[in-house]
Amino acid sequence: MGYSHWEECSNLKMLFNKENVMTQAQAEEVRLSEAEVWELVSSFLLAQNLNQPQVGSMADMLTAAQRDGSLSHGLQRLPGTLDTMAHPCFNKQADPVMQNITPVLTRVDAQYGFSCLAAERGLPSLVSAARNFGVGLLAVNNGFHSTALWPLVERAADSGVVAMSMNPTYGWVVPSGGSRPLLGTNPIAFAWPRPNKRPYVFDFATSAAARADIAMHRNEGQQIPEGWGIDKQGQPTTDPAAVLAGAMLPFGGHKGSAISTMIELLAGPMIGDKSSRQSQLFDSEANAAPCHGELFIAFSPELIAGPEALLEAEAIFNGFDEQNARLPGDRRYKARDASANNGIPVSVALLNRIRSLFPKGGD
Amino acid sequence: MGYSHWEECSNLKMLFNKENVMTQAQAEEVRLSEAEVWELVSSFLLAQNLNQPQVGSMADMLTAAQRDGSLSHGLQRLPGTLDTMAHPCFNKQADPVMQNITPVLTRVDAQYGFSCLAAERGLPSLVSAARNFGVGLLAVNNGFHSTALWPLVERAADSGVVAMSMNPTYGWVVPSGGSRPLLGTNPIAFAWPRPNKRPYVFDFATSAAARADIAMHRNEGQQIPEGWGIDKQGQPTTDPAAVLAGAMLPFGGHKGSAISTMIELLAGPMIGDKSSRQSQLFDSEANAAPCHGELFIAFSPELIAGPEALLEAEAIFNGFDEQNARLPGDRRYKARDASANNGIPVSVALLNRIRSLFPKGGD
Repeated sequence: MGYSHWEECSNLKMLFNKENVMTQAQAEEVRLSEAEVWELVSSFLLAQNLNQPQVGSMADMLTAAQRDGSLSHGLQRLPGTLDTMAHPCFNKQADPVMQNITPVLTRVDAQYGFSCLAAERGLPSLVSAARNFGVGLLAVNNGFHSTALWPLVERAADSGVVAMSMNPTYGWVVPSGGSRPLLGTNPIAFAWPRPNKRPYVFDFATSAAARADIAMHRNEGQQIPEGWGIDKQGQPTTDPAAVLAGAMLPFGGHKGSAISTMIELLAGPMIGDKSSRQSQLFDSEANAAPCHGELFIAFSPELIAGPEALLEAEAIFNGFDEQNARLPGDRRYKARDASANNGIPVSVALLNRIRSLFPKGGD
Repeated sequence: MGYSHWEECSNLKMLFNKENVMTQAQAEEVRLSEAEVWELVSSFLLAQNLNQPQVGSMADMLTAAQRDGSLSHGLQRLPGTLDTMAHPCFNKQADPVMQNITPVLTRVDAQYGFSCLAAERGLPSLVSAARNFGVGLLAVNNGFHSTALWPLVERAADSGVVAMSMNPTYGWVVPSGGSRPLLGTNPIAFAWPRPNKRPYVFDFATSAAARADIAMHRNEGQQIPEGWGIDKQGQPTTDPAAVLAGAMLPFGGHKGSAISTMIELLAGPMIGDKSSRQSQLFDSEANAAPCHGELFIAFSPELIAGPEALLEAEAIFNGFDEQNARLPGDRRYKARDASANNGIPVSVALLNRIRSLFPKGGD
């Protein structure tokens, strides 16, 4: 399937009509429906001969991120999937294999496809382990990871369990007291179900800043704030290029460094998968998303503490509301509502870039 | 049992001999053996009619902390135990009750005595759940918590499992974006077993600084660094008294605040126990150690990933060594070795204070 075919069958064809795009460009962004964003992603990936199950999972993840204003994990990720799928080990036909190792421990081998499909397949086992035993573990192995963590922990929380997720990335971050990169930007996500409310969800990298932010400063010729990184000699610097060649700093000094190390251990060797440094070697400059493991842990407050557990927790969230302290997921939920009402904003420049990356002609 | 009796039977009596203490005072600190520190703690607590099992557990914890240079959790905690034991709900005869709720979930009710005995009793179940199922949970409820977290996670790691521990404290910390105290200083500890080496262990509060440090600055008339706290009006300040009356800041900005919130939820409502704010209300100015829950999670890398898991992790630790980055537990292990070789340093002023707090005469 090539671009021309896709253009024929897609209800997005108006969008990619030359005149239309030029008109829209004056506004810099267009508003798409969730179905349109989903179809854009899925058409793009199908055109690359990625199998249908992976396409569906990736389209869900990227659409959710774009919808919620999590732009760095939204459509912006689509062009990069080409590099990932071009990695010599990437498996476009991957069919993740699930194994229940103990009643509370599930492993899903992503078979060198995208991680998210493997994680989705393991999620029901994770949730039921937590519900039946109080706690469950899900280890996702051998997946190329290029999506945000929050959509799946939020989905687990929608099933009434508490969920955490974490993974190594690439060895870009210097440990506290060191001078060279070793740890990944090691994100962690956490979701807590709330009665009659959307879950409490956070998701962040344990580096002081996102690598993409540092690159953006370099591209725009701007200095970065102190505390984001060090140069190759291990000295603090505000030069973004020097940090990209040197090392990024963890958030929160030695404490953040310890949390990052914990994530590196739990979602690396503990689940029989790569450390951030090993993922980098495996990439071998293919510029793919990191291939590695991902760990999920889920708990059932209701089994552990009884039916009142979630209501009791509301007192803590009320403590935030009383002082107008924003909960970490609030910005995403606000963007989600705006997207539902007004459509999902997508930059026209990005849309044109994606269009240019569709295969030309039939194939 | 009163002080005079204790002085008779103790092999520490030379230490408390007036002349001896005065001589030692010139050196500001004395060196005691582990057995001597242990006996000092146990004699002190026995003299308060705390039951033998709690005495033994507390003596183990405080001795380990003093030995490892973890001074704020060592003998310095002993005077404060009097306030804790004077709390109207404190149970000197507590006999923690263990319940295996599921094969991977154990609850131990501390019965309003010190937490550490309850945690110790639950530890073997936690370790065997992790070994047999990959993951285990231990919820300790209704305990007065006044000891460091690292000794017990280190002990679990000595049994070959990975262990985490966390708990709320008192509502002293302002959440990111807020203006008033809500969260606890919420410590988290983590231990990872290493083949033929002492475990990797960290243990820290998720506040930017320890409350005791802020109080010390106030007592010495010094300003505190920026970033430690805010005043009652929610404004940043370097005045320690204003922070003690206002709120402490979490470490690492909004990310540290999220980690602290996660700990508050997991070790509070999720295990059916108090939030930091509820613990504070329960204290009702008794100035006791916080009464609350504590959550332990343990994992078996060998069950999850196979026999090579721990060896694989060594590559990460080697990455620290290569760049001379200190591992979080190194300072404690160094102090432990020094204590083994030269005795455990104890301040004479503290020793005299403890002496003065022994009950006078028989009772």
